[in-house]
Amino acid sequence: MRARDLGLAWGELPPGARNAITDVPGIRVGHRTRVEGAAIRTGVTAILPHGGNIFREKLPAAIHVVNGFGKSAGLMQVEELGEIETPILLTNTFGVPACAEAIIRHAIAGEPRIGRETSTVNPVVMECNDGHLNDIQALAVTREDAEAAIAAAGEAMESGAVGAGTGMSCYGLKGGIGTASRRLSIDGETFHLGALVLANFGRPGDLRLPDGRRIDPRADRGLGAPPERGSVIVVLATDVPVEGRQLRRVAARAGAGIAWTGSFWGHGSGDIALAFGTAHRLPHEPEAAFLPPRRALSESRIDLLFRAAAEATAEAVMDALAAAGPMEGFAGHRRGALRDLLSAP
Amino acid sequence: MRARDLGLAWGELPPGARNAITDVPGIRVGHRTRVEGAAIRTGVTAILPHGGNIFREKLPAAIHVVNGFGKSAGLMQVEELGEIETPILLTNTFGVPACAEAIIRHAIAGEPRIGRETSTVNPVVMECNDGHLNDIQALAVTREDAEAAIAAAGEAMESGAVGAGTGMSCYGLKGGIGTASRRLSIDGETFHLGALVLANFGRPGDLRLPDGRRIDPRADRGLGAPPERGSVIVVLATDVPVEGRQLRRVAARAGAGIAWTGSFWGHGSGDIALAFGTAHRLPHEPEAAFLPPRRALSESRIDLLFRAAAEATAEAVMDALAAAGPMEGFAGHRRGALRDLLSAP
Amino acid sequence: MRARDLGLAWGELPPGARNAITDVPGIRVGHRTRVEGAAIRTGVTAILPHGGNIFREKLPAAIHVVNGFGKSAGLMQVEELGEIETPILLTNTFGVPACAEAIIRHAIAGEPRIGRETSTVNPVVMECNDGHLNDIQALAVTREDAEAAIAAAGEAMESGAVGAGTGMSCYGLKGGIGTASRRLSIDGETFHLGALVLANFGRPGDLRLPDGRRIDPRADRGLGAPPERGSVIVVLATDVPVEGRQLRRVAARAGAGIAWTGSFWGHGSGDIALAFGTAHRLPHEPEAAFLPPRRALSESRIDLLFRAAAEATAEAVMDALAAAGPMEGFAGHRRGALRDLLSAP
Amino acid sequence: MRARDLGLAWGELPPGARNAITDVPGIRVGHRTRVEGAAIRTGVTAILPHGGNIFREKLPAAIHVVNGFGKSAGLMQVEELGEIETPILLTNTFGVPACAEAIIRHAIAGEPRIGRETSTVNPVVMECNDGHLNDIQALAVTREDAEAAIAAAGEAMESGAVGAGTGMSCYGLKGGIGTASRRLSIDGETFHLGALVLANFGRPGDLRLPDGRRIDPRADRGLGAPPERGSVIVVLATDVPVEGRQLRRVAARAGAGIAWTGSFWGHGSGDIALAFGTAHRLPHEPEAAFLPPRRALSESRIDLLFRAAAEATAEAVMDALAAAGPMEGFAGHRRGALRDLLSAP
Repeated sequence: MRARDLGLAWGELPPGARNAITDVPGIRVGHRTRVEGAAIRTGVTAILPHGGNIFREKLPAAIHVVNGFGKSAGLMQVEELGEIETPILLTNTFGVPACAEAIIRHAIAGEPRIGRETSTVNPVVMECNDGHLNDIQALAVTREDAEAAIAAAGEAMESGAVGAGTGMSCYGLKGGIGTASRRLSIDGETFHLGALVLANFGRPGDLRLPDGRRIDPRADRGLGAPPERGSVIVVLATDVPVEGRQLRRVAARAGAGIAWTGSFWGHGSGDIALAFGTAHRLPHEPEAAFLPPRRALSESRIDLLFRAAAEATAEAVMDALAAAGPMEGFAGHRRGALRDLLSAP
Repeated sequence: MRARDLGLAWGELPPGARNAITDVPGIRVGHRTRVEGAAIRTGVTAILPHGGNIFREKLPAAIHVVNGFGKSAGLMQVEELGEIETPILLTNTFGVPACAEAIIRHAIAGEPRIGRETSTVNPVVMECNDGHLNDIQALAVTREDAEAAIAAAGEAMESGAVGAGTGMSCYGLKGGIGTASRRLSIDGETFHLGALVLANFGRPGDLRLPDGRRIDPRADRGLGAPPERGSVIVVLATDVPVEGRQLRRVAARAGAGIAWTGSFWGHGSGDIALAFGTAHRLPHEPEAAFLPPRRALSESRIDLLFRAAAEATAEAVMDALAAAGPMEGFAGHRRGALRDLLSAP
Repeated sequence: MRARDLGLAWGELPPGARNAITDVPGIRVGHRTRVEGAAIRTGVTAILPHGGNIFREKLPAAIHVVNGFGKSAGLMQVEELGEIETPILLTNTFGVPACAEAIIRHAIAGEPRIGRETSTVNPVVMECNDGHLNDIQALAVTREDAEAAIAAAGEAMESGAVGAGTGMSCYGLKGGIGTASRRLSIDGETFHLGALVLANFGRPGDLRLPDGRRIDPRADRGLGAPPERGSVIVVLATDVPVEGRQLRRVAARAGAGIAWTGSFWGHGSGDIALAFGTAHRLPHEPEAAFLPPRRALSESRIDLLFRAAAEATAEAVMDALAAAGPMEGFAGHRRGALRDLLSAP
Repeated sequence: MRARDLGLAWGELPPGARNAITDVPGIRVGHRTRVEGAAIRTGVTAILPHGGNIFREKLPAAIHVVNGFGKSAGLMQVEELGEIETPILLTNTFGVPACAEAIIRHAIAGEPRIGRETSTVNPVVMECNDGHLNDIQALAVTREDAEAAIAAAGEAMESGAVGAGTGMSCYGLKGGIGTASRRLSIDGETFHLGALVLANFGRPGDLRLPDGRRIDPRADRGLGAPPERGSVIVVLATDVPVEGRQLRRVAARAGAGIAWTGSFWGHGSGDIALAFGTAHRLPHEPEAAFLPPRRALSESRIDLLFRAAAEATAEAVMDALAAAGPMEGFAGHRRGALRDLLSAP
């Protein structure tokens, strides 16, 4: 079930064919889901930005930190250089080291000169704390999980309680992975902007649907309202030709999309957005001093990307909530599903 | 007419007695309104942070830039030093120089050693572009207007098309000055957080009311929909004891409040928040090397301030829209009033 | 007298023909110097980034704040949009409003649609406090001074106690305007990077010359050592094709150049760098959604620009010190000249 | 051998008793050195900020990124919250995941509620690339190495090719761990500021000693000049009571200290400073809403800390160079020792 199956579309721009980040050509997504026994509810989600060797052909990228209570890896270098050079992995907070090491080994396998004849590599791993439904102390995520998520990547992708989203919670409900996209028409050409969120944020009672309804799972007394220790990761991608500084501005609009769903960006929530562009590749070791001429969107048209980024982020949060079924996990904790609340009379 | 008179309350925290930034003890607000002939619709609004000499006794403060397409003065030093040392003036974009010079002269009058025996002074002037209803090319705002706004400051304050808000537009409607406050109870003590906004932002059709209704003035064909060249300034104040770094986090939540009202923070909009605290004063030339011991809110309680900041910002935008009547100005441009749309059957 | 006349070259890259910011093709610099009576020692310096209408054809630009104790105008928008759209004016702290208003009027004269049919304009004015030698309280700088500086702009430029540098002090000595450039060879093409500084910073005794000598004017008992209330402004320009994000990194290296001369970037000093590129112009209202293809320097070659920026900044500080003669001004304050200290046996 | 044994003191403030970061009361430093076979030259250095449980009693802290080409972990949350809650580990670039996981497990061992009944933990791991002398592809650093470094921590500490510094290079010479401190007298009380650097930066030929001498190891033809892939990490600590915003300003002065030694902060160098204060502890779960009253240094006195930070950083770089002997490592690469160059006639 997707967001639009529950009537939870957001905004006015049309979605792409899949209404997913994989509507941006070349992007693939893979999940590794770990549901074991009573206490393990976690996983890894991999976003492969293009079909080639991303270390050798990097992509422009930028970061926006809405609230920096988080432990994501690799963001500082993305900010400085305006590029990514690895797949993007999402996982739980304590799975970051295993995923970072997996990316390092994956990159070396693809380019054996790394760290010897050329520079090292900057693994990008983003995270949320799934400790409510998952026994995060178990440090269950392994390098093999990361590799499996990368290996599983494809254009068709699942939302909900899968991959890194397996044990996540959102507004007191079951959260997880969500996605959405917008189709953009610019001077007669068609482009896309896509969002993938790892939704694990929001106080119960603050959720606001596109039509203004407030949803409070606490009305269902079985759910409870433990203190928030959440986060939300937003990955935005577009094939519109843009430069790094513009991507930083686009990434910032993820914050508006999160706020539209009712959040005030709580203190304990690591709310981070990463945006990348697929129109131009940046060679690791360029032969010439100058990169070949590239076009870029005029700033006077950038509002279209801003609106798309906010809409796709907000709808991707809806998608995570719509796709996730109810779950019971660590210490008997439970999260209900939004679709069960909405279908109730 | 205030926001709550139209049923436009936002959030769950209780407002202060005036539901205004002047609920924070010691804060005064004054307006100078300029409505002249067919084309001048502008003014100045002054916020006096405390009743003493603010240069000699500064206050902790911080800035958050939601979108930096703006020409406000004095923000860099507030970011570096974490303090304000002048009244805060709001005006139109081209009125900034006159207001800045007015503050310099006002500060010298209050402390004749400025620039001679002691440091200079950092005037804080924030602005929006009222060029739709006002002939901003006329550079109508003068030093005298700034002085008049400062001289008019009091605890009772008006909202709507007054002071700097005189010629402003918001979501295609008449905007202006709005305010709101929240009463906070912390460990048995009562505090306040207040917001004052200069609302001049938002595309027609994007406005979202607290109950989820979308308001599109374009349905009224008399209004038109010129391209946005807006901005929004948010000033937040609180008497909760906080340090500069915390104020920066509080200021950021103005972005959530703006987004709640429907905005995606457009490219052409200078969306800036300044937050200051009134609990502790910082002497200009302290006698001792160490400031006397001060308490500060534990970060674990800061969500209360975050929620209050977002709620008060969003409601202050509603207040600006509720209080402003329709206006005709420069080049025959018109803006309708929200209250007229809401009262229509 | 220039820095190299005193043997004060810095670094290893070769200078351009003028060893000045005007070695970057198209850049012009003009001064307006105000030396009147016993107390007025101030002025304005104008940097015209290219020969056309800079509002209609903007240039990529970026800011780096080394220490934000300063009152410069227009920096926030440069950071957000990565472009400048006016001449850059330098003046004393209290001259910023007059210069900002002068730029607004100058821009409107060149484009009468500003503020009416198109957006407003973002004046960039940077400043230091010349209050030791100049009676800054007199607010002597006028709009006419700003216009005169712009009108005086040419490719030949003076250093020392001229324009905005008239009343400035540096390391307890007479400071002012300094400049330097570096000639860059990239893949067989020749480019330049130039620096212009307004040098008004540094504690007496901290000055370090390129050969390691420390210079302490306090040895000359006539000079005294009043507490620092200084600042330094660095404007960097290059015709190497670079994007805004790269210019931000280039601007940062001004901080290294300042430090090389002995400074630790004091608390009371507003140390600000602005870098702009002249290779590509950005139209105010582009006809097409996409800017025409532009090449950009590969990041792997950017160290050349970084080294040039640090070298040119440090040498420009030397140039300001070398070119300035001794001066007496406000309240009988005196500053000696570096050349007099160096020529003494 | 220490910096001062080679006459390489920097600045004018007096050093502390050990001239080391451990002059700040309570700080301990431990090394784990790995020199194995022909190719492993690496290790871990641990800085323990105080003698208690740092997760339960955090310390104020701040980050300054001089150049963000680096892979350090945990910095974003330090920036947001202004505090550290773990030991600080230094290691090689690919050792970050192992060290981060070691800190997570170490923190859980000290507070079993982490991730279950309370929040997760933010491991701070900073790194340089020792790939010239060390086979960084071997991923030799283990969790056990990190634990060994923590276990070895004491007040007496070694400089040079030890711990994380084992395989590092600096200005084409053997680099590594260096330290220095400054004793500060403020209103009759004695405090300290200490610096510890992991020095792995600088182009051969750029090194500048305190007396202005330039040192170029390329004169010794045996050393060669491979392209830089360096970095430098600076950890600053002080027992002066300061708040987070002030620590951010102090951290920035590490950049000046690095520049004093001849660097222009190269593109490929991750130059990062972290500063923390030991005067006040921040409880993980405070009982009251307000932290007890704390004094803080007046900003008007902060230049003393700025000068101390720049001096201690520059001298700590000298210390790393002075203490390190020559080394041969991976692929037969060699780095000579500064002391051998200086002792040569």
